[in-house]
This record gives sequence, C-alpha cells and structure tokens, in this order.
Amino acid sequence: MIIVTTVKLLIKGLFYSNIPVMKKYSVGIDIGGTNIPSAIIDDNGKVIYSIHKEISGANNAEVVIKKITDSINALLDYFDNNIKGGKIMGVGLGVPGALDHKNGRIIVSPNLPFFKDYPIVERISKELKLPVFIDNDANCATIGEHWIGSAQGSDNVIFLTLGTGVGGGIIINKKIYTGSHGIAGELGHITIVDKGRKCACGNFGCLEAYASANSTVARALEQLQKTSVKSTLKKLKPNEITAHTIFINAENGDEFSENILKESGMYLGIGIASFANIFDPDAIIIGGGFAKAEKYLIPSAIEEAHKRCLTGSIEKIKISRASLENDAGVIGAGRLALY
Amino acid sequence: MIIVTTVKLLIKGLFYSNIPVMKKYSVGIDIGGTNIPSAIIDDNGKVIYSIHKEISGANNAEVVIKKITDSINALLDYFDNNIKGGKIMGVGLGVPGALDHKNGRIIVSPNLPFFKDYPIVERISKELKLPVFIDNDANCATIGEHWIGSAQGSDNVIFLTLGTGVGGGIIINKKIYTGSHGIAGELGHITIVDKGRKCACGNFGCLEAYASANSTVARALEQLQKTSVKSTLKKLKPNEITAHTIFINAENGDEFSENILKESGMYLGIGIASFANIFDPDAIIIGGGFAKAEKYLIPSAIEEAHKRCLTGSIEKIKISRASLENDAGVIGAGRLALY
Repeated sequence: MIIVTTVKLLIKGLFYSNIPVMKKYSVGIDIGGTNIPSAIIDDNGKVIYSIHKEISGANNAEVVIKKITDSINALLDYFDNNIKGGKIMGVGLGVPGALDHKNGRIIVSPNLPFFKDYPIVERISKELKLPVFIDNDANCATIGEHWIGSAQGSDNVIFLTLGTGVGGGIIINKKIYTGSHGIAGELGHITIVDKGRKCACGNFGCLEAYASANSTVARALEQLQKTSVKSTLKKLKPNEITAHTIFINAENGDEFSENILKESGMYLGIGIASFANIFDPDAIIIGGGFAKAEKYLIPSAIEEAHKRCLTGSIEKIKISRASLENDAGVIGAGRLALY
Repeated sequence: MIIVTTVKLLIKGLFYSNIPVMKKYSVGIDIGGTNIPSAIIDDNGKVIYSIHKEISGANNAEVVIKKITDSINALLDYFDNNIKGGKIMGVGLGVPGALDHKNGRIIVSPNLPFFKDYPIVERISKELKLPVFIDNDANCATIGEHWIGSAQGSDNVIFLTLGTGVGGGIIINKKIYTGSHGIAGELGHITIVDKGRKCACGNFGCLEAYASANSTVARALEQLQKTSVKSTLKKLKPNEITAHTIFINAENGDEFSENILKESGMYLGIGIASFANIFDPDAIIIGGGFAKAEKYLIPSAIEEAHKRCLTGSIEKIKISRASLENDAGVIGAGRLALY
C-alpha cells in the first residue's frame, strides 16, 4: 500500500510539478569553403539570431578555427544578454568533407585541405564548456530539411544539393544515414553516362558532371562556341557566364539559356530515377544555390525521371525544392546538439 | 524481503529450470518464375530438408498456390515424422515482385503476372495453422546472405543478384530496407549509360541491360555477327549461345568469350562504384546464377569500381561472391518466420 501511494505521488509530481521546463537552444555552424554562417536555434528549429564570417583565402586550420570560436562566443554573448530562461545545450558543426564521426575528426575536406585527419571536436571543445557535435555539411542540410523543411514527416528521404558540385544526404527510417565508414551520401558521384564528362572527383560521367552549376556553365560555354548557336549570353565575356547569368538570361527570354538549364534538369532526372528505384523514398528534395533555377530544372527532372523509373515507384514520391534555402545547414547542425 | 526472495527465485528458475527449450524451425519458400524450392530450416539457418516443385507453364494463381501448399504440407509431414522436440514457427515466402508488406499482398509480379494485387498471405494462411510472412525474393536472398552467408556480421550491405536480370537487396543497420512503399532495392535499374541499351523495364542504359546474363548473351550475339570476330562460339547455333556456353567457352580458352564476360564485369563495376559512393557499405555481395562466372566478372568489376569510386570509400568495402548460392532465398524466407 505504501509503495502504491508513493508511486502515485511520484507520477502526480511529474505531471503537475511547478518546476519550470528550461527551454533548450543550441549553436549551429555551417562551415563552408568561403564563409561560415552560424546561428542560435531553438528546439523547434527556429533561427533566433545569426551571424556570418568570411574565410576566403584562409590557408591554415587555426585561421578557420578562430573564426568558428569567435562566432560561437559572439552567439553566446548575444544569448546571455537577450534570451531569458533558456539554456544552450551544445554546438553542432556542419563540416564539408569526410568525417570520422566516432572520434570527431575530419578525415579529408577537399575545399579546406588543411583539415586533414584533423580532431575538430577536441579542438573546438578545448575553448568551450559545451558539448560539440559534427556531421557532414550536406547531412546537416538534410537533417534541417527533414526536421522543419520540405521533407518534414517523411520516413525516407533523398536530399540533393545543387551548387558548385552535387552533394547529398540520405534519411532512412527518420535518421540520417552515414554509412559504415561515415562517408555515405555522395549522391553526386553516381555514374549516369559511362564514358561521359570528366568530374572533379576524377571519374567520368558523374551526375555532378552534368547537373551542377559548374557543369551547366561548362556545357553552355562549349555550345556557345558554335556559330550556329544564337543566345544573348554571347554578349557576355566567358568569365561572366555563370549559373546566375544563365538563369537571368533564361528569365529574359533567351531560349538557349532556358534549354541549357532544362538539359541540366534532364540529367538531374536520370539521377532521380536511379535514386527512386534504389530507395523508394517518400521524398526527393532539391536544394543548394543552383536550385533557384527550379522553374527550369525541376519540371524537366520530373519528366525524365517518370520516363526512366519503374512503374509504381516514381508516382508516389514527392519531388520538390528544399524550403529552408541557406538556413538548412545551420538548423541541421544545431539539431545535432539538441536531440 | 518477500518480494526480493520471490524475484531471486524467479531469476534462478529461469536460469536453472529443467524445462527443455524447444528448438525453433520454419518453412522457407522461394517462389521463382519456373520453379519453387522450399525447405525446413532451423534457427541457425541450416537447411534440414528441402524439396522442389516445377511451375513452368503455370497460367493462373491457383496452380501456383497449390504447388506452394503441397510443398508446405510435404515439409510439415517430413518434420512431424523425423524431427523430435522442435516446433515450426511459421512459413516465410520469397515472392518475385513488388509487395504491399503491410497487407501481405503482391502488388505486381512481372514473371507471374496473374499475381496482381493478390492477397497471398491471406490465401496461404487459410490452409495452415501457422503464421505466414512475405518479402521480395531478392530481399530474402539478401537476408539469407546477411544471416549466415558472405555478408554475415555486416551493418550495411548491398546484395546484387545476377541472373536473367539484375536484382538486389539492401541491408541498413543490420535490417532489410524495403523503402517507403515496399519496393526499394531495384538495384538493376540504375542508369549507367544515359542513351544506352534498352532494358526489360522500358528504360535505356540500366545496369541490368549490361551486367545480366541475358544482356551478356545479347552483346555476344551482336558482336559475333561481325566477320572480324574470331570465337569458338561461332560453332554454335544462336539459340545455343547462353551465359553458360559463353562461360564454358571462356573456360576452354576462347578469348572472345572471356572478354564478353569481363566487359559485363566492367559494367557491373560501374554500378558497384555508384553503390559504394551512395551507401558506403561494409560489403557488396554478388549472387545469382550468373555469378558462377565470378572468375571473369568480379576482378573486372573491382578494377572498374576502383577507377570510378571516391578515394577512401571503395578500399574499405568487401566485394565478393555470395556464398549460399541457390539456398540464400529459402534460408532468408525461412528467417522471416523465425525472428
């Protein structure tokens, strides 16, 4: 009888206690090749306050580490002065490269080559009294989109980021999938053309070599050399031809620019069909800076994917643009420290 | 004190009780397009007793269902008469097609087209007093290889079956991955050549259109039409040229046959590189009847995969032939009913 009463009181205490629940926050940092956005986020994924640091030209690890710790300290100062009744649970870092998750190390980072077999968690932790967590940058963006973005509520998700290259992330059973050695999700490096264009990775015919912003520019430059091609892009110098200027020219009615973008979308669709046949996911989400050209890319991609995919598979998959845009990375990085 | 003593006695009872632990068995059935192997397996994956039924020419569901239930009854009779002190826990069915796992239905089966939106679990259960479980046939083979075959102990596995077509199965975190709509793992239908050979699925340039037994034969027949090609295969009639005769001729020193098989291996390697970059698995396992030509296929596949894969990824992945051969399917199907 005494035991039963004690248990009842304990349960009652848990439900009706007047102890205020401390709201949880974290710091999310999205380490890029040229700049480092960072933010305080709350436990609903809302960005409370954010800052940016430039790292163009950084040529050693300590320069970048200083920018990261400066960012964290600035965010913590803001938090202490402005947020009442909350607690920062930790820091999450999105890192561009292959990681050893278990030991908190960067194995290799192509865009920040001085981070080679680098113990980033230990290094950042040394300056903080907070736990530090890491994941790959594309995985962080995937986690962000799955948490509060386009992929919210989905069990299985393929996230593709179109930018300089093509990155990706995989959600399986609601969790990020990092593979057996921490480097899964290199979705831009599936071969779609066996003897195709050379890719930055060294392979030929990768999805990245056709559907990235850079490869779109390369294909445009090649075709513009032909005298038969008519395009307003011909008024620009070669170094002015970028994914952005191709998009602007397409928007201004240049048919060549429109077709180059649709062609990139078609190649994206070949990749999407493969991912659909492999993963049968709920959603395939397209993010990254180049996804701004979604108007040209995504309908072509869907058309091509429907042609190539097994019947019954593609129809059930939501294919759409990511919704968090540039915030996906910091939000996903922040989540690492919250859950 | 009374409670503590009771708990102690209960624990002691569990460890030292004289009640014999009933050994568990199941029936595993691997429904194929032309025959149905089935077996009793024990809870270590050992095949205790197996039988085969032919279904060539079967043109309706009831004919196939009768062969399945006849097989089950024959296996149960054998069990009752020969196995002492064990219990059959249930029946597992490997089904060639897309499944609705939740409702135990076959959505569609290309090789057994009369199984369209067919409630196979309900239909088989009607005749049995045992629980019935289903999974896709390639998934069952994957489960078998992961349980006691080449992929044993791995967390993440890609299993490719080379036969008439190219099938596959995916193990993620030690469990079979079936996707959001039950049809994941169509690994033969990734595009490796954008404007490539027509595939049985309707797409162009699928892995299956290059690395299956059928596509190897098709490529051989095309090349043998050239007068410049020298091969002992030219002594055969076109309908005598099969994956088996190509293998035999390669074994007898025919360079053309050897090269055709190595070419299939090279295409297989393109697929393997993509799967490695996507999944970063522990193991990529090659099974199916055509894997008998492993001597020609697998070294070429590994060479090509190493050329194409991101550094640091492929080196850590075990790439090898499946070890259970034809038993993988019944063993994996049997496991469905055991765990």
